[in-house]
Amino acid sequence: MVDAISWVSAFTPTILATETVAADSALVLGGVLLSLVVIYLASKIGGELSNSVGLPPVLGELVGGVVVGVSALHLLVFPEAGVTSSDSVIIAFLKATAGLTSEGAEATFNAQSEVISVLSELGVVILLFEIGLESNLKQLMAVGLQATLVAVVGVVTPFALGTVGLMTIFHAPAIPAIFAGAALTATSIGITSKVLSEIQRLNSKEGQIIIGAAVIDDILGIIVLAVVASLAKTGEIDVTNVIYLIVSSTVFLVGAILLGNFFNKTFVALADTLKTRGGIIIPALIFAFILAYIGSAIHLEAILGSFAAGLVFDETDKRKELENQVRPIADMLVPIFFVVVGARTDLGVLNPAIPSNREGLIVATFLITVAIIGKIVSGWAVFGIPNINRLAIGIGMIPRGEVGLVFAGIGTASGVLSDSLNAAIIMMVILTTFLAPPLLRVVFGESEPTSEALASPENVE
Amino acid sequence: MVDAISWVSAFTPTILATETVAADSALVLGGVLLSLVVIYLASKIGGELSNSVGLPPVLGELVGGVVVGVSALHLLVFPEAGVTSSDSVIIAFLKATAGLTSEGAEATFNAQSEVISVLSELGVVILLFEIGLESNLKQLMAVGLQATLVAVVGVVTPFALGTVGLMTIFHAPAIPAIFAGAALTATSIGITSKVLSEIQRLNSKEGQIIIGAAVIDDILGIIVLAVVASLAKTGEIDVTNVIYLIVSSTVFLVGAILLGNFFNKTFVALADTLKTRGGIIIPALIFAFILAYIGSAIHLEAILGSFAAGLVFDETDKRKELENQVRPIADMLVPIFFVVVGARTDLGVLNPAIPSNREGLIVATFLITVAIIGKIVSGWAVFGIPNINRLAIGIGMIPRGEVGLVFAGIGTASGVLSDSLNAAIIMMVILTTFLAPPLLRVVFGESEPTSEALASPENVE
Repeated sequence: MVDAISWVSAFTPTILATETVAADSALVLGGVLLSLVVIYLASKIGGELSNSVGLPPVLGELVGGVVVGVSALHLLVFPEAGVTSSDSVIIAFLKATAGLTSEGAEATFNAQSEVISVLSELGVVILLFEIGLESNLKQLMAVGLQATLVAVVGVVTPFALGTVGLMTIFHAPAIPAIFAGAALTATSIGITSKVLSEIQRLNSKEGQIIIGAAVIDDILGIIVLAVVASLAKTGEIDVTNVIYLIVSSTVFLVGAILLGNFFNKTFVALADTLKTRGGIIIPALIFAFILAYIGSAIHLEAILGSFAAGLVFDETDKRKELENQVRPIADMLVPIFFVVVGARTDLGVLNPAIPSNREGLIVATFLITVAIIGKIVSGWAVFGIPNINRLAIGIGMIPRGEVGLVFAGIGTASGVLSDSLNAAIIMMVILTTFLAPPLLRVVFGESEPTSEALASPENVE
Repeated sequence: MVDAISWVSAFTPTILATETVAADSALVLGGVLLSLVVIYLASKIGGELSNSVGLPPVLGELVGGVVVGVSALHLLVFPEAGVTSSDSVIIAFLKATAGLTSEGAEATFNAQSEVISVLSELGVVILLFEIGLESNLKQLMAVGLQATLVAVVGVVTPFALGTVGLMTIFHAPAIPAIFAGAALTATSIGITSKVLSEIQRLNSKEGQIIIGAAVIDDILGIIVLAVVASLAKTGEIDVTNVIYLIVSSTVFLVGAILLGNFFNKTFVALADTLKTRGGIIIPALIFAFILAYIGSAIHLEAILGSFAAGLVFDETDKRKELENQVRPIADMLVPIFFVVVGARTDLGVLNPAIPSNREGLIVATFLITVAIIGKIVSGWAVFGIPNINRLAIGIGMIPRGEVGLVFAGIGTASGVLSDSLNAAIIMMVILTTFLAPPLLRVVFGESEPTSEALASPENVE
């Protein structure tokens, strides 16, 4: 019926090539699975140890990340700052156990790192969604003015002190000084909100002011970064871009919440109609991911979008149910974020054997002092609320975390910063990040039993 | 104190390059977020529509995938078979809304596709973990012999009928005929188990035989693939490799379950000690991912590892709690797998305007007949169990799904298969995959209300 000749097409040895490609995708999955095992071990061991000595679990997750990361075990490294596949212990393990070839190593390493990076970003997107769910929109709006003041004071003070100090005390030129000053303005909303949630203070007045201020600080930080970057590039400030960022961020946050209030009712009605599995979580994730995408597309941040989505759902009848379902997803994805932040932190800058680090150490001492004082004073911007814990608010703003690392990363690559100033900024980021969680727990006091926060009802069932 | 000169290092315009890199990572996240939104919309709309007309939701998810995939809307396409970034609507959207440049498009497309592929693989890993949890190890072992017979008959019959039929009726040469015969042996454990779970028949005697047989079939399929691949490459069968695969898969499955029984008690004790969040789910995922990695590293499959891990945990006191926590994670990740399988299915082979498709259509009719009959007879391999629904077992083995696509994919790239035979195999895979879920529901009857399966207690709380 059909001619026999047509059965065999080009019978080339391309089957070999195919097998390599097919193997590669299995190897990438293998690398991702191993990375996740490393991440989960680091986060659980770190988190439990930290918790057992009375420190917030998230600090242990960060330290766990440092241990498995570029500073120590090299189990979890990323292709940046001169790291190649040969530096990765997981790649070496894949070569030894899963038949990864040296030729395929670089591609597998890059793909695996890309996947873990995105998973970690999805982790912080989900974290902020959860924080939004746990936060109370009305309460947040009630402290909106206070939060704005805290954010502005917490940005202006360290920026001014840092820049002026570097220029006068250390005789640094204006542009590097401004860049370093800008790096002092960041606040890591992820770390602060996670600690507040862990010690069950997210819904305290202080907690809501800190969250509100951290969100506004995030936006201010993006604007500051845009200003500094254009200043470094052209020597001038791109006013149009600054205005664009201010307008777009305001429109975005206000718009998301207004539209969200409308979408709220649709969501509850929709969730009641859906009969297949995931009828609540999937529509919620669709909304959160759309807002996260818009946040990222207009050059703000994805986490602002998912936070806004969480705030919106906080107002619905489905909130409790949604919270229960987001919890295991957050348990799975959020530790990836904190361990990756730790793993990417290069403690090499603390090594005094390297000359630029010794130089940096002196400047770092100055920057750290400014970083802490500059944020602590922001607590005193709050007015008209009696018995407010101002110190707690100030300390809540201290951790620079991943946001600080972004500044340092851009500084390193742009050549605006010398090695020693860059090292000093990284030291400042490390110290503020690792210091804030235990301090926060101390200033909030141990009045409320923290074990409640850890063994919450949903967890025990 | 420190010389002013040392502040500014090479002040080059590399800041531009940095910004591109930084933007890229945000764009990859943006692309992933958009892809997930598309996937979730497709899976929910498809799943709900399918369910509302009395068909299994998973069929709707597959069809939803086809609609958004390479066959229709091009929202979710992958860099394979001549697809580039310019074919992706999401990449076009990123260009229009998020400032993606044409130069960055290919890299962003590849990275985003890599991430979605791995997420989909993690989805099926989690699905099989959940299926393992829902399955009962003792019951599965009790039907082990029956399941093995079903698997062997279900592999030998379609292989023999297919190969001999192609050689005698269609005068195909031996190697392409053997390759096509091999493609007929696969069973998609993912699709079958999902349907069984949806219609709440996973723990029926028939359900457990199907699952057991599908697992063994998966292993047999890997062995058949290895044989066929070595035959195609060298004209000879690599006996050592075949023996290696048989031994390693047996050792792996038996070893995982034996060791798992030991690890079981450790796990429960450990989960009781852990005080921070994710105290149950994270140790469980660590175990599942380690087994999945081993499964993948010894050239079996990751899903066999996570299935074994699920089976092991099924025996613990923590099972119910674990199931509740895995559920939202599965709700989030599993749809990615089914939509991606649908999206990758190129319905272009059904287009009769292409000559090789017309040729293929005749062969496809033959292959489909053999594919269905060859699996249905496997139900009659069961002995000594009165009143067993043999037809249901046979039909449970029909869907070729992603496993069949792997055969077809290797066939396409290797040049062993002509275009028309390749098209015929893909048509066979599509038809068996999309036909089996509704048939399975029919043969199991509607005696038990299926709405129970959908609105399970955990979902409603």
